[in-house]
Amino acid sequence: MQQPPRTLYLDDANDAVVILDQTRLPAEVAYVPLTTAEEAWRAIKDLLVRGAPAIGVTAALGLYIHMKRFVQEKSPDTDAFLIEAKRVGAYLNTSRPTAVNLQWATKVMCDAIAPYANKTEEETYNTKQSPAYAQPATLLQILRDTAMQIYNDDINNNRSIGQHGATLLKPGMGILTHCNAGALATAGYGTALAPIYCAHEQGMSLRVYADETRPVLQGARLTAFELQTAGVDVTLLCDNMAATVMANGWVDIIFVGADRVAANGDTANKIGTLGVAIMAKHYGIPFYVCAPFSTIDPATPTGREIIIEQRDPAEVTDLWYAQPMAPAGVKVYNPSFDVTPAELITGYITENGVLLPPF
Amino acid sequence: MQQPPRTLYLDDANDAVVILDQTRLPAEVAYVPLTTAEEAWRAIKDLLVRGAPAIGVTAALGLYIHMKRFVQEKSPDTDAFLIEAKRVGAYLNTSRPTAVNLQWATKVMCDAIAPYANKTEEETYNTKQSPAYAQPATLLQILRDTAMQIYNDDINNNRSIGQHGATLLKPGMGILTHCNAGALATAGYGTALAPIYCAHEQGMSLRVYADETRPVLQGARLTAFELQTAGVDVTLLCDNMAATVMANGWVDIIFVGADRVAANGDTANKIGTLGVAIMAKHYGIPFYVCAPFSTIDPATPTGREIIIEQRDPAEVTDLWYAQPMAPAGVKVYNPSFDVTPAELITGYITENGVLLPPF
Repeated sequence: MQQPPRTLYLDDANDAVVILDQTRLPAEVAYVPLTTAEEAWRAIKDLLVRGAPAIGVTAALGLYIHMKRFVQEKSPDTDAFLIEAKRVGAYLNTSRPTAVNLQWATKVMCDAIAPYANKTEEETYNTKQSPAYAQPATLLQILRDTAMQIYNDDINNNRSIGQHGATLLKPGMGILTHCNAGALATAGYGTALAPIYCAHEQGMSLRVYADETRPVLQGARLTAFELQTAGVDVTLLCDNMAATVMANGWVDIIFVGADRVAANGDTANKIGTLGVAIMAKHYGIPFYVCAPFSTIDPATPTGREIIIEQRDPAEVTDLWYAQPMAPAGVKVYNPSFDVTPAELITGYITENGVLLPPF
Repeated sequence: MQQPPRTLYLDDANDAVVILDQTRLPAEVAYVPLTTAEEAWRAIKDLLVRGAPAIGVTAALGLYIHMKRFVQEKSPDTDAFLIEAKRVGAYLNTSRPTAVNLQWATKVMCDAIAPYANKTEEETYNTKQSPAYAQPATLLQILRDTAMQIYNDDINNNRSIGQHGATLLKPGMGILTHCNAGALATAGYGTALAPIYCAHEQGMSLRVYADETRPVLQGARLTAFELQTAGVDVTLLCDNMAATVMANGWVDIIFVGADRVAANGDTANKIGTLGVAIMAKHYGIPFYVCAPFSTIDPATPTGREIIIEQRDPAEVTDLWYAQPMAPAGVKVYNPSFDVTPAELITGYITENGVLLPPF
């Protein structure tokens, strides 16, 4: 059975988080070691690694790698260790503002060692933890365990999402997806593509339609690449062709990922998801958001409160490795995500099952 | 007052149809002379000139230029002239199968000289026309007059469409358009952009949102270019951002062109128009098709009968002057148009006024 490509892993021997550089796909399959927090920040910012879960895992592992090097180079005491970990977590959070998994992952990392903050030796002794735990070497081990937990949870969540989502599929079905919420967006199988991989493993024959997803073309470069690598029947289309594919009766179900799900079910996902949802409603096609529970943000009441990242106009005017495609100085509207109202979403596939509105 | 660029014109001195090479926009403003039917066919096929009305005008002028050269080089008799004109008209029709203006223009040209076909000298004498009209030099003059009539009618139709459409606009309005149905798509002002130019001339301040229109990016390369050239406030967006722009409340009205309007009002236009119409309906935004009457095809009952041109997959996988953007061998669905059902169209702006359904 063909497999999708591996997205990232921890290389203990070289003190590195090794990631597949997604900006060079599909032309080149190149793995890049990240050995500092700055390299991790830049890799997330510049989309070498993208997809909410993969960003979270990269930040967690990046934080650990950074602290390992910090201990080796500076031999800090516990307080200095804790201060540096908090600083680096906050720093990594600034690489992409919209993805809640990023903030979630750095918070889980910092929370894991927070009980040891600002304590005297006696206070530490009086906690249920042994005072030995408060040593930087021990804190480092806690960070590694926590990061690997996040990594493995992601892989397991992907598999669960896949199993739940696959129950909605039947042989011969056509599935449309937008952007890349696949293996390349996670440490494992992906979210929106997980049901497809799961059904594919069971020998089910499916047709997948992949929106190319302008401006950064994750659908063309990543989704088409990873599905093809895994031996799944995939057809690439421009975003504006999705309505025709639906009108043709080729699409039975739609799976998309999510960067953040508000408390009322409103979902932020790659720009263009909203349009797909409107078209799906028009044609009566079920539209499912596939996301781990960590994507659901109870602190955000509705989609209105989600801050949408505005990206570089050059992504629209200058094509990938290409000459300028639009006149110099033209104004550009280039949000990276949009907000799909809950009313347009048929359900939410999580590792705990398929949720139907209202929440 | 700034003006949009000139799209094409007849250069009698050099026996050429001179066109602005739209494949080189916006980087380069280059005019190319077409001196044979083959050059006109290639220019239409390869999108150097595009837009249904501009294609029709190019075919008509190209047919005339070809026949002028044919007369100079071959000194044909009337029968040979008529046979060649019919052959070249049919040949030019094969350059783009979907645009009805192309077939319409070559038919108007051939019909103009058809009364002189297969007649004896006596029969020709007995028609109301003088037999002198049947000489190739005279037929050539008829072809020139007919082609220039098509050319000038297009310019006048554009202006009428603009005046009718401008009555729907108010200062400060936001207008979304898809693809390029502007000056560059016609001999004059354009169709979908004509109301905008008309209102702009009246000093009305407007905001235009231009879908980039993958895969050939006519919105980015042409619409943004010509509106900017004319001094109109234009913002370029990826096709998949249109829903968000509408959700933001920035769009008050939508104008698109048409390649063919069926008898029931179903409209074939650039791929992606269907999706825009569905989104417009969802948000309650008026959606207008702007087209000359020649675009309406009574012989086509509904959109189902319209043959949709499928174009080269490389348009999707390989970007403009760029490296490949998708894995080798990936399947591609690449229709160049879609069909928007009449029920999604608020009205049709023609040179004879605004039509509302049912027809």
